[in-house]
Amino acid sequence: MSEAKARIAVLGASGYTGSELVRLLLRHPRVELVALTADRKAGQSMADVFPQFAPFKLPTLVTIDDVDFTSVDLVFCALPHATTQTVIKSVFEKAPNVKVVDLSADFRLTDPGAYEKWYGHVHSALDLQKEAVFGLVELYRDEIRKARLVANPGCHTTTAILPIVPLLEAGALDPDSIVVDSKTGMSGAGRSAKEAMLFSEVSEGIHAYSVSGHRHMGELDQEYSKAAGRTVQPMFVPHLSPMNRGIYATIYVRTTGASAQDLHRILADFYKGEHFVHVLPFGQVPQSRHVRGSNWAHIGVVADRQADRAIVICTTDNLVKGASGQAIQNMNLVLGFPEAMGIDQIALMP
Amino acid sequence: MSEAKARIAVLGASGYTGSELVRLLLRHPRVELVALTADRKAGQSMADVFPQFAPFKLPTLVTIDDVDFTSVDLVFCALPHATTQTVIKSVFEKAPNVKVVDLSADFRLTDPGAYEKWYGHVHSALDLQKEAVFGLVELYRDEIRKARLVANPGCHTTTAILPIVPLLEAGALDPDSIVVDSKTGMSGAGRSAKEAMLFSEVSEGIHAYSVSGHRHMGELDQEYSKAAGRTVQPMFVPHLSPMNRGIYATIYVRTTGASAQDLHRILADFYKGEHFVHVLPFGQVPQSRHVRGSNWAHIGVVADRQADRAIVICTTDNLVKGASGQAIQNMNLVLGFPEAMGIDQIALMP
Amino acid sequence: MSEAKARIAVLGASGYTGSELVRLLLRHPRVELVALTADRKAGQSMADVFPQFAPFKLPTLVTIDDVDFTSVDLVFCALPHATTQTVIKSVFEKAPNVKVVDLSADFRLTDPGAYEKWYGHVHSALDLQKEAVFGLVELYRDEIRKARLVANPGCHTTTAILPIVPLLEAGALDPDSIVVDSKTGMSGAGRSAKEAMLFSEVSEGIHAYSVSGHRHMGELDQEYSKAAGRTVQPMFVPHLSPMNRGIYATIYVRTTGASAQDLHRILADFYKGEHFVHVLPFGQVPQSRHVRGSNWAHIGVVADRQADRAIVICTTDNLVKGASGQAIQNMNLVLGFPEAMGIDQIALMP
Amino acid sequence: MSEAKARIAVLGASGYTGSELVRLLLRHPRVELVALTADRKAGQSMADVFPQFAPFKLPTLVTIDDVDFTSVDLVFCALPHATTQTVIKSVFEKAPNVKVVDLSADFRLTDPGAYEKWYGHVHSALDLQKEAVFGLVELYRDEIRKARLVANPGCHTTTAILPIVPLLEAGALDPDSIVVDSKTGMSGAGRSAKEAMLFSEVSEGIHAYSVSGHRHMGELDQEYSKAAGRTVQPMFVPHLSPMNRGIYATIYVRTTGASAQDLHRILADFYKGEHFVHVLPFGQVPQSRHVRGSNWAHIGVVADRQADRAIVICTTDNLVKGASGQAIQNMNLVLGFPEAMGIDQIALMP
Repeated sequence: MSEAKARIAVLGASGYTGSELVRLLLRHPRVELVALTADRKAGQSMADVFPQFAPFKLPTLVTIDDVDFTSVDLVFCALPHATTQTVIKSVFEKAPNVKVVDLSADFRLTDPGAYEKWYGHVHSALDLQKEAVFGLVELYRDEIRKARLVANPGCHTTTAILPIVPLLEAGALDPDSIVVDSKTGMSGAGRSAKEAMLFSEVSEGIHAYSVSGHRHMGELDQEYSKAAGRTVQPMFVPHLSPMNRGIYATIYVRTTGASAQDLHRILADFYKGEHFVHVLPFGQVPQSRHVRGSNWAHIGVVADRQADRAIVICTTDNLVKGASGQAIQNMNLVLGFPEAMGIDQIALMP
Repeated sequence: MSEAKARIAVLGASGYTGSELVRLLLRHPRVELVALTADRKAGQSMADVFPQFAPFKLPTLVTIDDVDFTSVDLVFCALPHATTQTVIKSVFEKAPNVKVVDLSADFRLTDPGAYEKWYGHVHSALDLQKEAVFGLVELYRDEIRKARLVANPGCHTTTAILPIVPLLEAGALDPDSIVVDSKTGMSGAGRSAKEAMLFSEVSEGIHAYSVSGHRHMGELDQEYSKAAGRTVQPMFVPHLSPMNRGIYATIYVRTTGASAQDLHRILADFYKGEHFVHVLPFGQVPQSRHVRGSNWAHIGVVADRQADRAIVICTTDNLVKGASGQAIQNMNLVLGFPEAMGIDQIALMP
Repeated sequence: MSEAKARIAVLGASGYTGSELVRLLLRHPRVELVALTADRKAGQSMADVFPQFAPFKLPTLVTIDDVDFTSVDLVFCALPHATTQTVIKSVFEKAPNVKVVDLSADFRLTDPGAYEKWYGHVHSALDLQKEAVFGLVELYRDEIRKARLVANPGCHTTTAILPIVPLLEAGALDPDSIVVDSKTGMSGAGRSAKEAMLFSEVSEGIHAYSVSGHRHMGELDQEYSKAAGRTVQPMFVPHLSPMNRGIYATIYVRTTGASAQDLHRILADFYKGEHFVHVLPFGQVPQSRHVRGSNWAHIGVVADRQADRAIVICTTDNLVKGASGQAIQNMNLVLGFPEAMGIDQIALMP
Repeated sequence: MSEAKARIAVLGASGYTGSELVRLLLRHPRVELVALTADRKAGQSMADVFPQFAPFKLPTLVTIDDVDFTSVDLVFCALPHATTQTVIKSVFEKAPNVKVVDLSADFRLTDPGAYEKWYGHVHSALDLQKEAVFGLVELYRDEIRKARLVANPGCHTTTAILPIVPLLEAGALDPDSIVVDSKTGMSGAGRSAKEAMLFSEVSEGIHAYSVSGHRHMGELDQEYSKAAGRTVQPMFVPHLSPMNRGIYATIYVRTTGASAQDLHRILADFYKGEHFVHVLPFGQVPQSRHVRGSNWAHIGVVADRQADRAIVICTTDNLVKGASGQAIQNMNLVLGFPEAMGIDQIALMP
């Protein structure tokens, strides 16, 4: 009842992942929101930016410079790429003991060269890049518990890593065969006003984007390669589907002899004790709406007509397990709270 | 911590309001789901019917006859109209001390004649009809606390009553002037397989339905008339908008001299202490998405260009405040729990 | 077969009404598109702006200054309000004999005072304002045939005028009772990049806008008052519904004694010979999707439970009968072509 | 002007492909609709079934038995699989000279064994199966011109065959590498009332279906194998995306040495003269909305980061090029009309 609450700051609270953090943290029993930032909207209330918050008491939006990080326990950073590394460096200079869960891409790639290749410039906080832990909880739980800086993985990445890494680790897949066809809802494209994201531009249609190379590929390569013990470069194409939330990755693989049922068994074993990963019975097909609004990942494995091929499908909510929910899952580990605290909402039916 | 949990049955768990009850009750700290019924799907698990529930432990679906009501504290009844009155009568015969929150329309009209007029047949449980309390919490809180049978109001009704009854009680409106133009999401139409509700039939368009007389009118007449102290028969047309959730009632009124600002003041005063009703600043316009997934009602008042006219808008989530959320709010009152327990989720942003 | 084709310019071809004009005119047998303008996109092809046009030969986008209006027969002007009056004035200075169909609001209000009131500044082309004909074909066909400048009416306006003006002219309605609740699809909000129009901001919800006074009210007041022979100021609230196309006006009226069936008869008589206005059998309810992609207006009349009240519903496609289709209908009259030429496409089913 | 019109019957006019045929044929200058059938809705008008047709004169719906096929020039058959073969057999018995364009799957597979494998029963009209021509116009134009019975290909099939067959014929692809990830709008699922197709079940989410084997695979195998000169069994998973219309096939291939740019050149050459196939500039990505409402296919080719891999994307409108539009294209060939007559509508913008 009267346990002290952790003091939390959210940097970038006016975007979709930032506001999703606020939405979930407001109902988390062990935290207190002490600072919310939004540089261009400083001075406004969260209710001005998202009227959904009208009934709730929340700190007024301020600039990052106005936050006293020395009185904060943990910082969520939901800022654009590149800006992030500068901000976090400066946060640690002011408050070396604060914990940080970063939702940007800045600290996900451990190899400085890979970072430079995918982002086109040298990383400006190389020490922190080395220090950061990749925040895919089910794979790096122990490291995360001890981390000061957690790099929350991307939404496409989370959804494509969860079902494939255990199979690569088991040596069950031909690493050169992997094709990841990923579909995301529109909230993944963020809240900035772009013609291409207007309702009338994106409803009633579907399309691929970043076909020649999406930056999340860097994360896939890193984690797939690590799991396979050799370089892996999957084919990967993301798509925008006319819905708000959801990532749906249909993954086509060839095995090294294993049957689809074997793949299913490996995944079911791997995730047996996990709270947030549910492996469906063999042959069943997940739907993105079955995890909408929740922190769950659903995984399905289906046989192909050729014995050495299989279809592995994983789906998550891009704003929850694919972003803010997983970020809180990371926070729970870092701060020693029960892992599912505050994020065990059940998916919406309609 | 170790307080005994109330034992709850949900009759009709396989529909949208039934499953929304289960979704919310699973996370309610003071209840335990002991029986779920779905006559045609008896023997299946909730996860068979809604894969969203796959990760959770829930009672298998049974028929109503298989429920032992004597070991249940409270029954939610989410069954079709008419069937309901027979079922609840029989429940009380088996277990006179059980509490019932009914989500159907069967016990909302207190006048047997009105019931007969709107539903075309004599009510088959007249005693219970007399006993039932109209479960609009903000208006009937004290009666509900003592009730054995609560008639949870309709979604259109809740949304149109909340903003108008206080104004009628204050004598601020011309009761003959009220026009209620209500828009609902598709989940309000239920889960039965009808051609008219297919995605390809209802997406990309809007239309009115039941224009010549929707049954919810009976509830509006009853509550408006009671508030005005005379017979009131508003104009009311419901519409289906291509979205899953949400009720949006645009209400056109003429005043008896009061200004729009006066109307706003009356409503702001009336709902000042309320947890789930938020009156926006004068002139601000609610949006249905600002309450989506939450138990809140947002109310706005805007001036018309003619001084004695005003536009009053109210919006709720039809499955939460318009159905299952309010039903749990009623349960909380009936069972003596804090009113907001288990239903204070914040609306989804995207 | 070998009749000369009219030479057409479209000013503002890169917006939704402009591109809808191009889409329809490309298949019109009697016109040739000789100039398309888009100031900020000059130099690009239409296919750059709308890949839908990739397979077709079209003039490259140019600035308005680059158009030789003396070699053009008719100009469609799909530019923003206020800019328009300057542009059209200058077009007529360069080419006094050209015909203009204007899709903006600039020439719809015949009273300079009304214009000033609704738009906040003095009209800068008062002579043209006087000259312009209100382009609601079914009401002003004869004037349009002789016009040099046609002011194509607004989408909300067209949809609310068609079903009500004949009733007011017949003296069948209490002019003070009219409530127009109008719903529009998102394409009505245009193509400029605004946060409030992003998919994630407007899907899965509905809301009113411009509640305290939408500028289309000026047109409604003008046409209703003219029909009633006295000042009429209806209540009018527009809403945004999550769909691309469609206007749906639910109109609540009180009669001066006439029954709803009388209203239906008046409308059925009035529109008997019309190509593009379809009055449904009494009691039937239109749906916006039944006119989607077409130039038709569907009108329905339903009785209220009180004998002197009725609900009149009209629906159109905001981009066709509510904008570009009606503009071409106007062009057909002005240029002496069959009225339905090039715009008699049938509504899409799904 | 006064050329005789072909007399057309549409069997199964009350479904989505049937009504799309009627919509398009009503505006075709060289045909006359003389019979429309819908067994369970016989006696009703098309406007009863689709109010979109209210303003138009159309034959009343009748049963198939009531059609006099001897006075018909061409029959479109839009009936369910299996029923179709019986019906068409009987049509030809009554009227051996009539032409038939069949939209079902019954005559698409030329190999009786393949038919039996995919459909689970022996074909009941083996002679006709042998006679039928696969109606993918761009590949079989000459055979179609002479055909009595044309088997219009499936929507997924059309979209996956167009971009791949020319590459297989050129020997540019490793036939074992092909992965087809196809997404379709909801109208592809038809108009029968199924819970799984309700708006509230399918909006706001995406999912794969028939993962373990969709029947369209039979058509893909047949055409891919024919083009490759050996057996080809691609991986193929169809998905349902929350939109009305559109097929979007993202196809992952490995080459036999060719670069992605080579693949693009092969396709651009192959389709150079084609009216309805548009190959985008190399590297550009199609969107399903760019062909919505039109008979066009858009094809894009994008390089992968590995030189011997590429992504080929094709998109069509499932109801037009994927069904009824292509059926009319087939009719135009069979009856000697210009190939694009009546089906050259431009895609909708919003």
